[in-house]
Amino acid sequence: MDRDAADLSDDQRPSDADLEDIALDQDYALSATFVDMVIDAADRGDAQRLSELVSALRPADVADLMGFLTADYREEIVPHLPPENLAEIIAELDTNIREEVLEIVAPATLARALGALDSDDAADVVDDLDEAKRATVLAALPEGERSAIEASLAYEDQTAGRLMQREVVYAPQFWTVGQVIDHMRSAGDALPELFFDVYVVDPAMRPVGGAPVSRVVRFKPETLLAEVMESVTEIPVDMDQEEVAYIFDKYHLISAPVVDAGGRLVGQITVDDVVGVIQEEGEEDMLALANVSDAGRDASVAGIIGSRLPWLVVNLVSETVAVSAIAIFQDVVAKVVALAVLLPIISSLGNNASVQTLAVAVRSLASRELNSANTWRVVRREVVAGIVNGLALSVMIGLAVIAFYHDPKLALTAGLALMADIVIAALIGIAAPLVLEKLGRDPAVSSPIIVTFTTDFVGFFALLAIAALILL
Amino acid sequence: MDRDAADLSDDQRPSDADLEDIALDQDYALSATFVDMVIDAADRGDAQRLSELVSALRPADVADLMGFLTADYREEIVPHLPPENLAEIIAELDTNIREEVLEIVAPATLARALGALDSDDAADVVDDLDEAKRATVLAALPEGERSAIEASLAYEDQTAGRLMQREVVYAPQFWTVGQVIDHMRSAGDALPELFFDVYVVDPAMRPVGGAPVSRVVRFKPETLLAEVMESVTEIPVDMDQEEVAYIFDKYHLISAPVVDAGGRLVGQITVDDVVGVIQEEGEEDMLALANVSDAGRDASVAGIIGSRLPWLVVNLVSETVAVSAIAIFQDVVAKVVALAVLLPIISSLGNNASVQTLAVAVRSLASRELNSANTWRVVRREVVAGIVNGLALSVMIGLAVIAFYHDPKLALTAGLALMADIVIAALIGIAAPLVLEKLGRDPAVSSPIIVTFTTDFVGFFALLAIAALILL
Repeated sequence: MDRDAADLSDDQRPSDADLEDIALDQDYALSATFVDMVIDAADRGDAQRLSELVSALRPADVADLMGFLTADYREEIVPHLPPENLAEIIAELDTNIREEVLEIVAPATLARALGALDSDDAADVVDDLDEAKRATVLAALPEGERSAIEASLAYEDQTAGRLMQREVVYAPQFWTVGQVIDHMRSAGDALPELFFDVYVVDPAMRPVGGAPVSRVVRFKPETLLAEVMESVTEIPVDMDQEEVAYIFDKYHLISAPVVDAGGRLVGQITVDDVVGVIQEEGEEDMLALANVSDAGRDASVAGIIGSRLPWLVVNLVSETVAVSAIAIFQDVVAKVVALAVLLPIISSLGNNASVQTLAVAVRSLASRELNSANTWRVVRREVVAGIVNGLALSVMIGLAVIAFYHDPKLALTAGLALMADIVIAALIGIAAPLVLEKLGRDPAVSSPIIVTFTTDFVGFFALLAIAALILL
Repeated sequence: MDRDAADLSDDQRPSDADLEDIALDQDYALSATFVDMVIDAADRGDAQRLSELVSALRPADVADLMGFLTADYREEIVPHLPPENLAEIIAELDTNIREEVLEIVAPATLARALGALDSDDAADVVDDLDEAKRATVLAALPEGERSAIEASLAYEDQTAGRLMQREVVYAPQFWTVGQVIDHMRSAGDALPELFFDVYVVDPAMRPVGGAPVSRVVRFKPETLLAEVMESVTEIPVDMDQEEVAYIFDKYHLISAPVVDAGGRLVGQITVDDVVGVIQEEGEEDMLALANVSDAGRDASVAGIIGSRLPWLVVNLVSETVAVSAIAIFQDVVAKVVALAVLLPIISSLGNNASVQTLAVAVRSLASRELNSANTWRVVRREVVAGIVNGLALSVMIGLAVIAFYHDPKLALTAGLALMADIVIAALIGIAAPLVLEKLGRDPAVSSPIIVTFTTDFVGFFALLAIAALILL
């Protein structure tokens, strides 16, 4: 990828096949060279070239490209997006970029494009429109699609109802394999674009089983569906998407029927929708532990500040309270200045130890590996590990203090304080997420602040109180 | 779930259907009540009851159950695992529990069980056996399965080759839909248990396209496969599993053909294998940012210590170096003890700000949203946000200092130092992962230590050097 983008676009324009090669690096990530080519064409106002370039990309790659561009360039590219892929491209975009693009695209164009999407993806896009535009777009849609989208939007965000598509293939038990295949062959557009299971339902539309298509085709045409089907895992329509993801991951599901409160089949969720949820939930936990709210991919400077400054302010306040433990013992510090050097070491180690425990606990809670069946065992294990780690680190810091300050009493003070802090760190690191979870809160979100405050306060207090007892 | 487990198991033993209901909570996580029932049966040495209980569970739930039990109980349960599900259960177990179980199960039983698994899962299990047992088990397998497993193990860990299964459905372009369906109907055991795509290959076995089964069945039997097929995304057999996961997520793939260096079809990867990888990779990043090595689900105390103490020791050493900035200015602290109170606040905020930037950067790198096409824009955005956040926090800490100490010069000192530290935090928070990535290292693994050290050193040095200039 060391060829010069400007050269490429001026002299020897590569063919379309070449363009595809240039567009993606070996790992299928969009290449910087290609992004440069797009920027170059936009700068020169070369509309035809822009169309060529975006047409060489798959929808997911166009969405990627948009993420790499600034808002001005994006605006310039939107008119050149291939109409046949427009809906798919919009579905792939990150929320804040999507909102921007939806403002530019005409409602009629959008309505035309939406028809190509499954109901879940179409509802997602419509959900991002502002009130006025949403009404216009919905009005421009054919009756069937409009009602499907409206029905989907009626479910709460982040539930199975929003994740599912209403298009689903089902059949009664008494059908034969041959009848099912004939049905699939003739139903055409009414079927989902891609599907993996045929659900078997009773006369009240309640699922009684399911058969993977790859299983159905293996049986003789006269075989009854009842003989082919296997049991299915039903997803209640109001289930939280995080639980849906857990179930798909646990049982390696490819698709699952979604049922309403009466147990009737209302749609299906497929694993490709769930992959996105798993990715998201993992990222949310990671960012929450780092005290960031997710500002999305193309966050502006204001977005970045909004996602971080509030947490930093909370940190400033809680830390101001934590250092009150130092303020109380100010005269001790004045007499033994070496304590000012030790305070940050104890705080840093206490924090580190508690965040270690916290991260493991958040992960275990998310994967349901930690629940009331093993809470006490896990807590005990954490505390015992904390005691051992604390002992080891205390000996090390004690030796370091003796080496630098030749003061055994100061070494003892540092060792005892660190020991106390590491044990408290283990305890609070596991207790904070457990308690938050019990209270129905997200264990990843407020834990870091609680844990940092506790270990700092305990560490400062322990070091200086012990110093006051031993050293003065 | 407030019924008493002991009561249940003694008096009114629930039927099998009831057992299934008790086993899982509403969110399909294994219930604590059920775990208690298993422990109770094991304590009473009630073998029949144990068999009943584990037979009521699906393989993934048995694996879950094992995770909730201590090693002693696990040993007691292994002989009662239903033979027909044994292989699947073993495939579901976490690595360290699996090793333990594999030690107990007889090689002949294991060899019999492995036949039921797809080649990727079977290879995974065999990979966990110790040398001696591996030889015995492989020898007990039929020739075909042995060679499939050995071929799979020949690929490097965490590559597409290890993730893929060799069982795959393929056909030449000139076949008709009818021929393909007949083939699927007659091939039986040679086919994968479950599959989603029929790959179309040229005479040299190179994939030229693919057709989802749900698409194949929609066409008339006389349609040529060449008309039905769509383009496929080929996965090189030596591709890292993280890249495979990225591609599946990006293009919403359900399955993809795996090709060798010559472009020949050697297997397929299905999305259910990838879901696990996505989960894993996300967890790895989260734990790495918290300075923990993954010790697995059922880590012993020794395992926990091993996964954390080394990082804490590194932290102790780096922090000891960072506080040298305080040691240098010890006499400044002795003269203005309030500085000892301010040091931890600045360190805490600097750390927090850098970890925020770091987490976002690691996430963006993992999802390929950050590359050479937008590096400078992202770095600039981070630094500008750091300047704004720094200004805001500096004003706040300045006001707090005036409120508590009535000393404008000290307030100015704290404000300037915090400002410097927050800007450096933004810079190092984005630079560290970018540089590590460029060096081919995991950006999540060493970044936290680098970032903590830098912000602490800069924060301490800035506060005390400015204090020496302004206050003395």
